Amino acid sequence: MSAVITLTTDFGLGDGYVAAMKGAILTVNPQATLVDVAHTVEPQNIAQAAFLIGTVHRHFPQGSVHLVVVDPGVGTQRQATILATPEAAFVAPDNGCLSQVLEDTGARPCDGDGRRAPGTGSAAFAITNQRFFRQPVSATFHGRDVFAPVAAHLSLGRRPDEFGQPLATLQALPPDQPQLTEDGRLVGRIVHVDTFGNLISNIPAGDLPVDGQTLSVDIAGHTIHGLSGTYSDASGTLALVGSSGHLEIAVNNGNASHLLGVATGDAIRIGKMKGAKQ
Amino acid sequence: MSAVITLTTDFGLGDGYVAAMKGAILTVNPQATLVDVAHTVEPQNIAQAAFLIGTVHRHFPQGSVHLVVVDPGVGTQRQATILATPEAAFVAPDNGCLSQVLEDTGARPCDGDGRRAPGTGSAAFAITNQRFFRQPVSATFHGRDVFAPVAAHLSLGRRPDEFGQPLATLQALPPDQPQLTEDGRLVGRIVHVDTFGNLISNIPAGDLPVDGQTLSVDIAGHTIHGLSGTYSDASGTLALVGSSGHLEIAVNNGNASHLLGVATGDAIRIGKMKGAKQ
Amino acid sequence: MSAVITLTTDFGLGDGYVAAMKGAILTVNPQATLVDVAHTVEPQNIAQAAFLIGTVHRHFPQGSVHLVVVDPGVGTQRQATILATPEAAFVAPDNGCLSQVLEDTGARPCDGDGRRAPGTGSAAFAITNQRFFRQPVSATFHGRDVFAPVAAHLSLGRRPDEFGQPLATLQALPPDQPQLTEDGRLVGRIVHVDTFGNLISNIPAGDLPVDGQTLSVDIAGHTIHGLSGTYSDASGTLALVGSSGHLEIAVNNGNASHLLGVATGDAIRIGKMKGAKQ
Repeated sequence: MSAVITLTTDFGLGDGYVAAMKGAILTVNPQATLVDVAHTVEPQNIAQAAFLIGTVHRHFPQGSVHLVVVDPGVGTQRQATILATPEAAFVAPDNGCLSQVLEDTGARPCDGDGRRAPGTGSAAFAITNQRFFRQPVSATFHGRDVFAPVAAHLSLGRRPDEFGQPLATLQALPPDQPQLTEDGRLVGRIVHVDTFGNLISNIPAGDLPVDGQTLSVDIAGHTIHGLSGTYSDASGTLALVGSSGHLEIAVNNGNASHLLGVATGDAIRIGKMKGAKQ
Repeated sequence: MSAVITLTTDFGLGDGYVAAMKGAILTVNPQATLVDVAHTVEPQNIAQAAFLIGTVHRHFPQGSVHLVVVDPGVGTQRQATILATPEAAFVAPDNGCLSQVLEDTGARPCDGDGRRAPGTGSAAFAITNQRFFRQPVSATFHGRDVFAPVAAHLSLGRRPDEFGQPLATLQALPPDQPQLTEDGRLVGRIVHVDTFGNLISNIPAGDLPVDGQTLSVDIAGHTIHGLSGTYSDASGTLALVGSSGHLEIAVNNGNASHLLGVATGDAIRIGKMKGAKQ
Repeated sequence: MSAVITLTTDFGLGDGYVAAMKGAILTVNPQATLVDVAHTVEPQNIAQAAFLIGTVHRHFPQGSVHLVVVDPGVGTQRQATILATPEAAFVAPDNGCLSQVLEDTGARPCDGDGRRAPGTGSAAFAITNQRFFRQPVSATFHGRDVFAPVAAHLSLGRRPDEFGQPLATLQALPPDQPQLTEDGRLVGRIVHVDTFGNLISNIPAGDLPVDGQTLSVDIAGHTIHGLSGTYSDASGTLALVGSSGHLEIAVNNGNASHLLGVATGDAIRIGKMKGAKQ
């Protein structure tokens, strides 16, 4: 069985916090294979953590354990949770860190306050069984004292229900889906700017309302015509389907975020080129 | 036996230096589990390295080997050393990198020039046995050619005394302990500012001169009343006991270092709230 | 057999791209030992990637696999390749990323367009056999879908010729060797500025035209006399042979790049001190 444990945090690379978590993991399971997703999540940026783990979890071996610790409510009543899916187990505070993963399980909306029930075949559990914690538990570093040892015990084959009671729902961030306008245009949002300055939107390739040849993209006062296949397909600004399957804006050998002045949250509008055949 | 080897250096993340050390380790012990503590220690900042390894070493499995290479004197007469404790082995230049670890062993002051003898059950050794070095030994990169292979051989079960003669003392940085004033206040110092801007002091929770409810903290012209349990316990600036067991100043969902204008080295004063019952 | 796989990319540390590659590797070979060389290569800076992997590959165990993904032409006709040497296998786009490694194999110049044939005992192969790819293959992320799984299969003992046809030559960057002037001086270039601000040149120690005592170095209007043995040998600016065996300019406890205003690409001239005996 896989003993891969990934780590996604806002702990940065300059402190010993990530190493302390890894030490706590290896104390429980010396055979664990540790993989960093990112530790440069902006402090307490739950949406960014949800995006990052959402883009990578499918690429890991069956049975992997994913630890996500962006935890502004550490030490308060917010629940620590496990989300068990048919492919993996996720360990995180119940604050929306797992929104994208939850969505990927086919989660069902549940009530007015943003909680969602995991999809069929998946299940959520509270983490309350203190025998799996590192003692004494610090009030300010559950990453090291709760989440890390729990992830390590899961990687050793413990069942999720050994850690606490089932939970019907988990906290989710407000849904962030592109909207279709009355005139047939699709309005989305940039959800991530990557290292290269590529602008990744919340628009899945399958939702594009027109074909690639007649597609027109408006972003920050710029218009892009047509869909490219690769970053080198056109000079200047181009639109393409990125590696996560979403519409992405890039500049050939350049930084689209800098050149277009676009940041996370900015709008992107998809329509049909003027003059294109109906 | 554990084959965890941790690495703490000022080599940064942009060069191949850390990778060269890891290659040298894996050449000797292909089964070693490598964990980065941090490589962003400021160039030649021995105190920062001493702080970082001091905060994490206790969280690793019994038998771990900790490599600390912040080494302004590389290639000179400064000694390469092993500090063997009941829990772990530390490999570092003899320049104060291990000050906090040495303190944790219960080290005894020894003489006027800042050297200290390891506590009972611990022992120090010179690294002089060239058969454990990578050949040829570069004059400028003992991290790769001396410290890394020595750590790897230790992780394979070699005894510390196989690498060189016992050393009675190791170099330590000047002790940095809070001072009790005549009027019963405790004056400490900020020793680390973390990724979140939290201000970590040199004041252990056990040394606080008053109870949490009547505690008053003065720092950079600000006064904080009372001790909080978590980062979310109060709005604004708060004082709490952090995950390393020391008094820490934080701002709920904010950056205390930026907001208070406080940096490493700044003073922090602990007293009793005015009007509090004696 | 070693299952070490190193990774050198321009993917940065803030996205999930590196983690996605590692997930793809571990899905194929769960026993692989993953080592980061660097992920902070400037976007699409092939020369920087070539330098980094060139400085570290010799320090890894026999049989290691080195993955280098700086790939501005991803999704275009540029070939994906394996370079197999007697010590290791390298997996990279055929764009010059492996220039230094190729040079280290004793590569022979081949034609006018900068391609070179691997040296005796080494061989290059195209990567075309899709059964080793992660499916579906994204047009924009061959790091995850092609290079990573191929590296993993190589680490499991697959022969390089199972992935595609032999290639007679690989792309190389223009040779960057110091030039000897008519008056016996050697003119080189700074090829890397490291974390400490040390200036690493393209001049191998063995090419220095005069002995260390009478050596004179001119760089950015400064003159350095004599060769030092370590960074602490002299106060101020000094010249020494660095850990990669090349001439390096450093400042004792300082940052040579900042103090001298020197960057990658700047010239460095080596001659004999005036008045030194012939």
